[in-house]
Amino acid sequence: MIYLDHAAATPVNPKALQAMLPYFAEQFFNPSAPYLPAKRVREAYENAKAILAQVIGAKSVDLVMTSGATESIQLAFTAARGKVLISKVEHAAVLETAKQFDYGLINVDKAGTIDLDNLRAQLTDEVELVSVALANNELGTIQPLAEIAEILREVRLDRRARGIKTPLFLHSDASQALNLIDISVARLGVDLLTLNAAKVGGPKGVGALYVAHGVRLKPLQYGGGQERGLRAGTENVPGVIGFAAAAEEAKAHLAGNRKEYQEMAFALKRELAHTSIVSQIGGKVNPVELKYLGNPKRQLANFVPICLPGIDAERLIYKLEQQEIYLSTGAACAANKGSKSHVFASIGLSDEEIAGSLRISLGSTNTLEQMPVVANALAEAVAEELARTRRAHG
Amino acid sequence: MIYLDHAAATPVNPKALQAMLPYFAEQFFNPSAPYLPAKRVREAYENAKAILAQVIGAKSVDLVMTSGATESIQLAFTAARGKVLISKVEHAAVLETAKQFDYGLINVDKAGTIDLDNLRAQLTDEVELVSVALANNELGTIQPLAEIAEILREVRLDRRARGIKTPLFLHSDASQALNLIDISVARLGVDLLTLNAAKVGGPKGVGALYVAHGVRLKPLQYGGGQERGLRAGTENVPGVIGFAAAAEEAKAHLAGNRKEYQEMAFALKRELAHTSIVSQIGGKVNPVELKYLGNPKRQLANFVPICLPGIDAERLIYKLEQQEIYLSTGAACAANKGSKSHVFASIGLSDEEIAGSLRISLGSTNTLEQMPVVANALAEAVAEELARTRRAHG
Repeated sequence: MIYLDHAAATPVNPKALQAMLPYFAEQFFNPSAPYLPAKRVREAYENAKAILAQVIGAKSVDLVMTSGATESIQLAFTAARGKVLISKVEHAAVLETAKQFDYGLINVDKAGTIDLDNLRAQLTDEVELVSVALANNELGTIQPLAEIAEILREVRLDRRARGIKTPLFLHSDASQALNLIDISVARLGVDLLTLNAAKVGGPKGVGALYVAHGVRLKPLQYGGGQERGLRAGTENVPGVIGFAAAAEEAKAHLAGNRKEYQEMAFALKRELAHTSIVSQIGGKVNPVELKYLGNPKRQLANFVPICLPGIDAERLIYKLEQQEIYLSTGAACAANKGSKSHVFASIGLSDEEIAGSLRISLGSTNTLEQMPVVANALAEAVAEELARTRRAHG
Repeated sequence: MIYLDHAAATPVNPKALQAMLPYFAEQFFNPSAPYLPAKRVREAYENAKAILAQVIGAKSVDLVMTSGATESIQLAFTAARGKVLISKVEHAAVLETAKQFDYGLINVDKAGTIDLDNLRAQLTDEVELVSVALANNELGTIQPLAEIAEILREVRLDRRARGIKTPLFLHSDASQALNLIDISVARLGVDLLTLNAAKVGGPKGVGALYVAHGVRLKPLQYGGGQERGLRAGTENVPGVIGFAAAAEEAKAHLAGNRKEYQEMAFALKRELAHTSIVSQIGGKVNPVELKYLGNPKRQLANFVPICLPGIDAERLIYKLEQQEIYLSTGAACAANKGSKSHVFASIGLSDEEIAGSLRISLGSTNTLEQMPVVANALAEAVAEELARTRRAHG
């Protein structure tokens, strides 16, 4: 099996699973109960939060643990009552949440990078929240968060000078980025940051929201007062402990992993360029142009989004599946609904280009040795598809 | 260790944990992804939902999986826009959620059973939701849900006859009941039912909401469209699989467990009555009256709520903790906040009685042999407390 869809899901890191296991059956106590074993569970839980906070340069008290990135995003958006601005390439969780508000979409360039001038132009006085993912989930494009934060800071100062009291917050969904970018909330300048365990070797159903001091949120869940009243409900102790262990592990191997993924991505591209079947793709007989989406200089090291205009990417996925090579056309949830990617549409791809786009996202399950296998299988699948369509048209 | 707080948390059932394990690291795929291994994960997930639905006599399509009972409750309450009615002894998750609405509190009797006449009297035309827990989380009192459902049915018919279109739904939080009562949503007559994995040998951070056909809810989370658009976010696959396995296990052993807990509760009460130190409690020297709260005829078999007026229950918990016997005064989340139980206050206990109340909730970790140990330790702790207060006052 060769798995190339780490942006959709990652296996739980063995260390994270080991860290979680005792908290299912032995240390199962309710962390809010008054006796010693429960207090120990509370300590382990708070320790995990502290570790996770440290990974992003924050304090434990700044984190609200949630059931995943989608919940974190909903919670983040409660900071706003007025208008919100999001980039055109946000994940469905941000886009669909924004639609519950008066919202605006910020343009992106062909690589999916936010257009800062367009952001400035749309930052009218009623805007209360700007939400831009740290790294895009289909292109891997890394956004200039610090520059966005600086623009917002200027707007805040200008508003203050004019006596306008509308708050303005910056939220970023960092779901894809935690295991590839050394995140510091201070350096990024964000007020709110969404984290997702399941994308970084932690368990599904766990997330976190970093909330800067002074940002007022509205609880999504009322009850027992957990998470400083912002997120009631018995804490998911094993989940949070697993998340912290995975995040710590990711942080520890950040540079090494990045280097490894860069080498794999480079090898994959080299193989694709050299394979005899692929060179045929660009040849005169089969004028298929192999394009890499996004800007490799501002892209997560593990992302290799490919565009093969004129080829049916869904058929390629099916062909590769026969060889136990697994990848997707884009976000899993969108793929499931059979709708075309709004991300690919937003960077100006034609319908034909969108239909021919694949998302390869490398990760912990991959090796350098897999890359020629992938390149060959992809090239062969493309050649078969070309032969099929030629037959159909001929 | 003797653990007597199963109403606060239960260890994950070994079968449930075994069922979950493959879905962390091997079958980690995103169930919405398009390739075969992901489709197998989707199948396993849907199968788990079907099992869970079957346990409560419902269909898979009627269940929305959530991150726990608290979230299920929030989601259930989105059925209402107008007034809501809840019993006076609801869990904080219901009470604090109701406070976000125009709400009324239904009286209960001394056993914590809902006053049906008071319910009828408060069922004015603006009421849209009634929420009464199937079994109370501090007293174990089982509510007459079917009778409540019948009253609501009459009110609905009356409203229809008068041309009033305000909907009226019945929600019940069955968090404490799933492993002790054979639940059938049809028999109970509920429109909405909250389930909680962590109270029945499943993992923390997982819950479900049963939603009868025709009940319209508002999503709490927007995004990828999971759970029929009612609860977006990547599914917590291992969690849901663990919940289903635990619920199935609980259902299979329902009668046996109930009998076992009844025997334990009986033994505990018998031992408490016979222990020489305890008989002293009721004697003339130390006029402490040992009372059992709730009505044993309408009580979960594993609940033994005890009231020792004049004794400081928190000190008893501390003393028992020294002997590795763990129990609480009431709900863990309330205990954590140091506030006095609104449940005990609502059944008419005085402040002194509330301060002397303990919640013993038996479960899978208990044995019959533990009961004399518990009775002796409790009696000794009470005697010590009496001696201390006598010294202090003398």
